[in-house]
Amino acid sequence: MPDPLVIADRKFSSRLIMGTGGAANLAVLERALVASGTELTTVAMRRADTEGGTGVLDLLRRLDITPLPNTAGCQSAAEAVLTARLAREALDTNWIKLEVVADERTLLPDPVELLEAAEQLVQDGFTVLAYTNDDPVLALRLAEAGVAAVMPLGSPIGTGLGIRNPHNIELIVARANVPVVLDAGIGTASEAALAMELGCDAVLLASSVTRAQDPERMAEAMRDGVRAGRLARGAGRIPQRFWARASSPPR
Amino acid sequence: MPDPLVIADRKFSSRLIMGTGGAANLAVLERALVASGTELTTVAMRRADTEGGTGVLDLLRRLDITPLPNTAGCQSAAEAVLTARLAREALDTNWIKLEVVADERTLLPDPVELLEAAEQLVQDGFTVLAYTNDDPVLALRLAEAGVAAVMPLGSPIGTGLGIRNPHNIELIVARANVPVVLDAGIGTASEAALAMELGCDAVLLASSVTRAQDPERMAEAMRDGVRAGRLARGAGRIPQRFWARASSPPR
Amino acid sequence: MPDPLVIADRKFSSRLIMGTGGAANLAVLERALVASGTELTTVAMRRADTEGGTGVLDLLRRLDITPLPNTAGCQSAAEAVLTARLAREALDTNWIKLEVVADERTLLPDPVELLEAAEQLVQDGFTVLAYTNDDPVLALRLAEAGVAAVMPLGSPIGTGLGIRNPHNIELIVARANVPVVLDAGIGTASEAALAMELGCDAVLLASSVTRAQDPERMAEAMRDGVRAGRLARGAGRIPQRFWARASSPPR
Amino acid sequence: MPDPLVIADRKFSSRLIMGTGGAANLAVLERALVASGTELTTVAMRRADTEGGTGVLDLLRRLDITPLPNTAGCQSAAEAVLTARLAREALDTNWIKLEVVADERTLLPDPVELLEAAEQLVQDGFTVLAYTNDDPVLALRLAEAGVAAVMPLGSPIGTGLGIRNPHNIELIVARANVPVVLDAGIGTASEAALAMELGCDAVLLASSVTRAQDPERMAEAMRDGVRAGRLARGAGRIPQRFWARASSPPR
Repeated sequence: MPDPLVIADRKFSSRLIMGTGGAANLAVLERALVASGTELTTVAMRRADTEGGTGVLDLLRRLDITPLPNTAGCQSAAEAVLTARLAREALDTNWIKLEVVADERTLLPDPVELLEAAEQLVQDGFTVLAYTNDDPVLALRLAEAGVAAVMPLGSPIGTGLGIRNPHNIELIVARANVPVVLDAGIGTASEAALAMELGCDAVLLASSVTRAQDPERMAEAMRDGVRAGRLARGAGRIPQRFWARASSPPR
Repeated sequence: MPDPLVIADRKFSSRLIMGTGGAANLAVLERALVASGTELTTVAMRRADTEGGTGVLDLLRRLDITPLPNTAGCQSAAEAVLTARLAREALDTNWIKLEVVADERTLLPDPVELLEAAEQLVQDGFTVLAYTNDDPVLALRLAEAGVAAVMPLGSPIGTGLGIRNPHNIELIVARANVPVVLDAGIGTASEAALAMELGCDAVLLASSVTRAQDPERMAEAMRDGVRAGRLARGAGRIPQRFWARASSPPR
Repeated sequence: MPDPLVIADRKFSSRLIMGTGGAANLAVLERALVASGTELTTVAMRRADTEGGTGVLDLLRRLDITPLPNTAGCQSAAEAVLTARLAREALDTNWIKLEVVADERTLLPDPVELLEAAEQLVQDGFTVLAYTNDDPVLALRLAEAGVAAVMPLGSPIGTGLGIRNPHNIELIVARANVPVVLDAGIGTASEAALAMELGCDAVLLASSVTRAQDPERMAEAMRDGVRAGRLARGAGRIPQRFWARASSPPR
Repeated sequence: MPDPLVIADRKFSSRLIMGTGGAANLAVLERALVASGTELTTVAMRRADTEGGTGVLDLLRRLDITPLPNTAGCQSAAEAVLTARLAREALDTNWIKLEVVADERTLLPDPVELLEAAEQLVQDGFTVLAYTNDDPVLALRLAEAGVAAVMPLGSPIGTGLGIRNPHNIELIVARANVPVVLDAGIGTASEAALAMELGCDAVLLASSVTRAQDPERMAEAMRDGVRAGRLARGAGRIPQRFWARASSPPR
């Protein structure tokens, strides 16, 4: 596996993590998941992904995609910790994508509750992937608390506003000693590529694919966008210049 | 061939057009061209691509890539027309990428000389792909003059400043009745993807690949970026929103 | 007069040039003009500013504001030259703001017709202030043709999209040997300030004031914004840095 | 006093709050303060503003500018609370600008320590103006804790990167029930104007003035920029449009 994404003790060849929320139905979701090439996909414990029930989990099992339970919808550390424990029982995994949001209108993380929940879950043996805002300090605190990955937002969930503050993402990447996954806000493929060019290790997205007019095609676009950004980051781009420079000298 | 790029009477399955200038040597250029998947590559008639001589043309022939002669380095309509005619003789093709720049410092097109050269070459039976600034009016005038494609810049040649004015590119796309190729200024893969998302039909680039630290890898990044942007454009992205929206409703 | 704007043989203490189009009525326009502090204001020869008639000219005379006739609505060099001559007769001035637009939908300048009109009017003894797109080459050609000022757009007329391509404005300023006036596209005061910070000598605007909810207040805002940007340009701003820097060292 | 800035029980006619750090000497600082029109100016308790000593406080007294002590340099709630108490003794004021930063490299607020310090100081009877990152949730938590004003950054202190995330500032303004003061990151006057246009009630800055090449002139620029932005916000700007719109109809 060339250039794998490594989180905790696992390796993935795809750097695109998908969410399952927002798809019109399971058939649409299946085609999108396959097209995306994802190997890791979040499942909401407290929200109704597609028609709910065990349909999504069955689908992931059939597609051999690892389910990553999340605590979406939790607004306190206590709620999130409880949800994580229920998920561990139900899905037989100690991996958890931790979300503790402050309110339904912004769906932004509550920094204090988030950090508290992360500390508790780490102590409790969980492998925690923490959804956070783009504050470089909070990201560092989460890493110090022992999370397996920090997942800063580009912009609020479902807005499609892309990466509002690339400088913050660069600051997070510059100091992180755990993988950085850009999570939330991505609207289109060029933004997924940009996330990787800024130095993120992976991208997580849901609505931008599941709610696109053609989810399958957008999933494919995101797969290619993430790959393009990863390659470009490694290739060492040309510096920016004020004046022009001919590609070849006069003969 | 699904979703081909059509220019004049030819079809291409790749939407990435490469330039050959700036590569350290022919071996580097070869690996980059192969990685890019390009089927159409510009060759400067008046500039020294790599070591010059017929090396580049031999290479393209070997790789089965169509050479597209350009008039880079010409600063008047007369010079450009003459260069195009010499190219037609030398390469046995009536395709020409028309460049008429105003000066060496900006390498920006001279609108008046460019339009005049385009008119003459079209009348003379050439298939003209016209490198232009991002002025929607000039693009329309060139299309009316009969060029086969308009090629607006994202930013000046070799600057790596990306697409400085997406609004102008959108205006050009909205009114063009010929293919639009984003040409010049691209620095990294997310910008190539963005060009396609704005509605361009293809992307042309050279320095961003040939002068990258790892040209082969950047060529691959650009290939994927162009593909990602094309898919995303067709997939119908989600609209942007001010407030958040959960991907799934509460269960 | 400290730091005057000098165009041709005239000096102005205000660097805000106003247009009269778009105001609800003459009373609103009067309050806005006074609040703006402008000393030079365009009057359309072929468009109906406010209720039309000679009201606007009478108003400007009463306010001791110099009227600057423009050729708005002209789509060819011939039309523009004719309109300029009629304006010279009617207003007894050889100053003309030259506009030659390509179409009603974009109101963007037609580069070829514009340059031709500029050349004819200069030869005919006019003091020409040329509305142009943001192409640095066309701006240079206009200056070489002898215009008294080049007036690049920030974005298309009436869009309020601000300065879409600051890099182009900087390129124009870097090479211009005549005053540069940012004309068109400004939506709010910070954008007027930015125009001046980029090195423009003045700002021309109409709709952003006359169509604001409170034109008088917006006129005052623009007056202050232009002044702020001019001062900031002269004051030498701090450079941008990636990492923070405390304003004072630890005691 | 028309349109005063109201914080807690005090009114100010200027909406520009200055910092004193970074000035070359007291004479330069004096001219800048006067030019800025400020009525409220921060003084660092733990950092050496200009040559230190009581010079700055004497100067502010002479200029009749209210000193606002800050806790710059504190990295924990305990340190900040202690510093605030010392300031209260020394300056005989219960107003405090609260800063609790995480490290010297980013000077970004530590969200957890900041919130804790704010709660303690409010309980202790202080009027707290809290320097914070641009996280809308943390701003709300601080307001709920009883601070008199929230002061989100535009970008890290001293970077001159301007307002990196206008969307976050808009979210903070949309939900704040206390004054919002843009604090840190401003580099030039157009950015101060933008802060006000986004709905901030005031702007706080230091380095961009004190370290400019001409601090006095930049102070004047900032004064005008803040005023321009405030007026523009109140004036109701025109909406943005994709296509052009003539300021006047054809006659």
